[in-house]
Amino acid sequence: MENVLKEITPKSIDYSQWYVDVIRKADMVDYSPVKGFMVMKPYSYRVWEFIQAAMNTRFRATGHENAYFPLLIPEHLLQREAKHVEGFSAEVAWVTHGGSELLAERLAVRPTSETIVGAMYSKWIQSYRDLPVLMNQWSNVVRWEKSTRPFLRTTEFLWQEGHTVHRTADEAERETRQQLEIYREVIEGELAIPVVAGVKSAGERFAGAVETYTLEALMSDGRALQIATSHFLGQNFARAFDIQFLDEDGTLKYGWTTSWGSSTRMIGGLIMVHGDDRGLRMPPRVAPIQVVIIPIGRGADGKAVHARCRALADELGSIARVRLDDRPEYTPGYKYNDWEMRGVPLRIEVGPRDLKAEQVVIARRDTGQKTTVALAELPSTVARLLDEVQQELFRQASEYRGRETYTISRCQEADAHGYRGFFRGGWCGSEACADSLKIETGMTIRCLPLEPESNQASCAMCGATSRQQVLLARAY
Amino acid sequence: MENVLKEITPKSIDYSQWYVDVIRKADMVDYSPVKGFMVMKPYSYRVWEFIQAAMNTRFRATGHENAYFPLLIPEHLLQREAKHVEGFSAEVAWVTHGGSELLAERLAVRPTSETIVGAMYSKWIQSYRDLPVLMNQWSNVVRWEKSTRPFLRTTEFLWQEGHTVHRTADEAERETRQQLEIYREVIEGELAIPVVAGVKSAGERFAGAVETYTLEALMSDGRALQIATSHFLGQNFARAFDIQFLDEDGTLKYGWTTSWGSSTRMIGGLIMVHGDDRGLRMPPRVAPIQVVIIPIGRGADGKAVHARCRALADELGSIARVRLDDRPEYTPGYKYNDWEMRGVPLRIEVGPRDLKAEQVVIARRDTGQKTTVALAELPSTVARLLDEVQQELFRQASEYRGRETYTISRCQEADAHGYRGFFRGGWCGSEACADSLKIETGMTIRCLPLEPESNQASCAMCGATSRQQVLLARAY
Repeated sequence: MENVLKEITPKSIDYSQWYVDVIRKADMVDYSPVKGFMVMKPYSYRVWEFIQAAMNTRFRATGHENAYFPLLIPEHLLQREAKHVEGFSAEVAWVTHGGSELLAERLAVRPTSETIVGAMYSKWIQSYRDLPVLMNQWSNVVRWEKSTRPFLRTTEFLWQEGHTVHRTADEAERETRQQLEIYREVIEGELAIPVVAGVKSAGERFAGAVETYTLEALMSDGRALQIATSHFLGQNFARAFDIQFLDEDGTLKYGWTTSWGSSTRMIGGLIMVHGDDRGLRMPPRVAPIQVVIIPIGRGADGKAVHARCRALADELGSIARVRLDDRPEYTPGYKYNDWEMRGVPLRIEVGPRDLKAEQVVIARRDTGQKTTVALAELPSTVARLLDEVQQELFRQASEYRGRETYTISRCQEADAHGYRGFFRGGWCGSEACADSLKIETGMTIRCLPLEPESNQASCAMCGATSRQQVLLARAY
Repeated sequence: MENVLKEITPKSIDYSQWYVDVIRKADMVDYSPVKGFMVMKPYSYRVWEFIQAAMNTRFRATGHENAYFPLLIPEHLLQREAKHVEGFSAEVAWVTHGGSELLAERLAVRPTSETIVGAMYSKWIQSYRDLPVLMNQWSNVVRWEKSTRPFLRTTEFLWQEGHTVHRTADEAERETRQQLEIYREVIEGELAIPVVAGVKSAGERFAGAVETYTLEALMSDGRALQIATSHFLGQNFARAFDIQFLDEDGTLKYGWTTSWGSSTRMIGGLIMVHGDDRGLRMPPRVAPIQVVIIPIGRGADGKAVHARCRALADELGSIARVRLDDRPEYTPGYKYNDWEMRGVPLRIEVGPRDLKAEQVVIARRDTGQKTTVALAELPSTVARLLDEVQQELFRQASEYRGRETYTISRCQEADAHGYRGFFRGGWCGSEACADSLKIETGMTIRCLPLEPESNQASCAMCGATSRQQVLLARAY
């Protein structure tokens, strides 16, 4: 729709501007008339649909069912779990009027749904036979944020939130980790973003959780992004909402609950991990368009090329998501740039000479590599290349993260790297050290990795004996 | 979860209570702590997902793309189209506070999105080359309703809303009708609900529309349900939101817009059209569970039956959505009732004697008919029967509608039928007659059918010369 191709600010000049340029010029989002609210245009919403499908398949395979809970939550319900309300109250948008009527009680636009779900579960669960309850919801949530960035932090965002109840702590813990593993599968396998799985320190836990598991990804500016979280809620919400069940032994017990969420923020991660100065680079599995075909040539030759391209698009349509760019008003060069900006994994260029030789040229977005391919081998080559691009993007991102992960003894050592990257160091376990880390370096404890890569003897902040390895970074 | 099987109030005793009993006992919904808001439990949400898939396929095939627009709309935007705000202002929920801050301008929780979409389209559209714009959104909307009923009229509901812009009035008109046709395909083909397509009279039009097309279905209590609508908006919204484009001839023109929506209300229609005194009857295409397998027998025999049933469930799993009900705490009889209440189209009963004879019994939910089927023919029989049940439910509903559709000369003739059914009569075209119809009979003009079945000489209200046939009914 914006037909004038404008420059993208290089990452090295201004990373924030680069991000904004890419998402606007690749037609991913637009700003809305309400500050902090974005419009997801079809090109980003389609990515979201692929993510939804990948998640849904795995949620269902592990026994979860989708449901839908109300958008508006009465204030008194939100206040039932003390830490939860403390964590969220500053971010809540309040509905005070319905039509012309002033409401007797304010209603919160859900910032998350533990409270309303808890209130329902308490009605639904009576016996151990009703457990586990395994539900998920796809919805919008609103959190009133001071400063926002499309996908990364917006006042409204789309997400899924899972809410489960279990008979034992152990089962709930396993659920929490299982869902984290599903997130890892989708984020690494579909979005090609390598992640570090870990546990949040107490200060970074979800409001009301006993334990928060997280996946942390490294963006291409060296900052961390918390890309999905899974919470073991213990009996906190079960007690607050009276979720009790009669166990087999005849006694009444509180359930053990979990919640886990992932949002459109993942798309922000995808852009920052794979994008380059030419624009987006879409992992094929979630690319709205996997292959673009560009006819080259004018006049009579052009017509023949055009007809052939249409046939090719039809043929390839059964194995890939193909777009034929036959817009007469643009030159091939313009189109190359345009689709590169949108990150389409493969471009097929078809000229009259190519056709005479029964071949086409395929250009890869990830490496820029061009190959001449015989028409007879085109379908199999396209299928293979899409797979290769997917792997290659993951490999590049993993290599980058490997290069930018440092083991340090003192947190100040990160200064030499401009605080860009993941830093692995020791931690004594005190919140005082976590606080001083933030004040002195701008970094936070991203997580206590589930798979520590080495052991540090001493805390990177105070030098006292380390109790566990932590992953440190400046974060979005 | 509610393990005690309670009676469903018969339709003939109290239809409203029957409806509420069915949806609660079939585990479709529950009431939430906020009046007018319902929780969609997995058993109804899954139906919604099948509807979404069926719609999405057709929307995409006709060139539409999904997008997502903000939940909250600034008050000044809502007021731009005079008739639109007049129609919706009494129903709007208002957000007045974000966190602890009082907002400078109230924000409406979207009751529908023409305004926010229009504001964005005005930015995006410059040239005739940008047209048509064909977008759809799946979202929640809030309309503050005085009296609510699950699915039929709830304060919040889920829906899809399409919003398109075209170069000419003609093209926009065609779009409006095409989308109506898609609704008809899905509602008749998937939900097995026969509909009458028509145009709304001026008094029943969508607020701000030039023409509203509707699909009207007849519920089993003889009342009409408006089940989907498609609006030709002319240039009303284009003018209000300044959606202009430079046409090929170099002049600036206003676009022609449409919008069309269908909601979870369709599920209410499905329940009322197909349900009976035993509970739901699910059309197989949207049934979360298409086949339930119930093992019969105890002890050693029971074990063998159980193992065989599991194998059958696996085998049938590739052609249908199958549930094996192996709950040990319930009798087969209890299970029969339970799944009948949920409307599962086919029940397979497997006992030890059946297995010895290499056969099972299949019971159809739609007709109650039981057939003995050889195991070797089970998969093909199940596939065929599912198709038959789908057809049969549509046939029954069509037959009922045919029987309950009356041609009348004077609207009072409907009194003899207790105002139950569809009544076809003449209309002079005056709004005064439409008003008096409502006051005198409780009926409304549901639509001016696109395919009138006969011509009446005179208006069923005033007796003056009829200008067109109308469909009259009492409606939800």
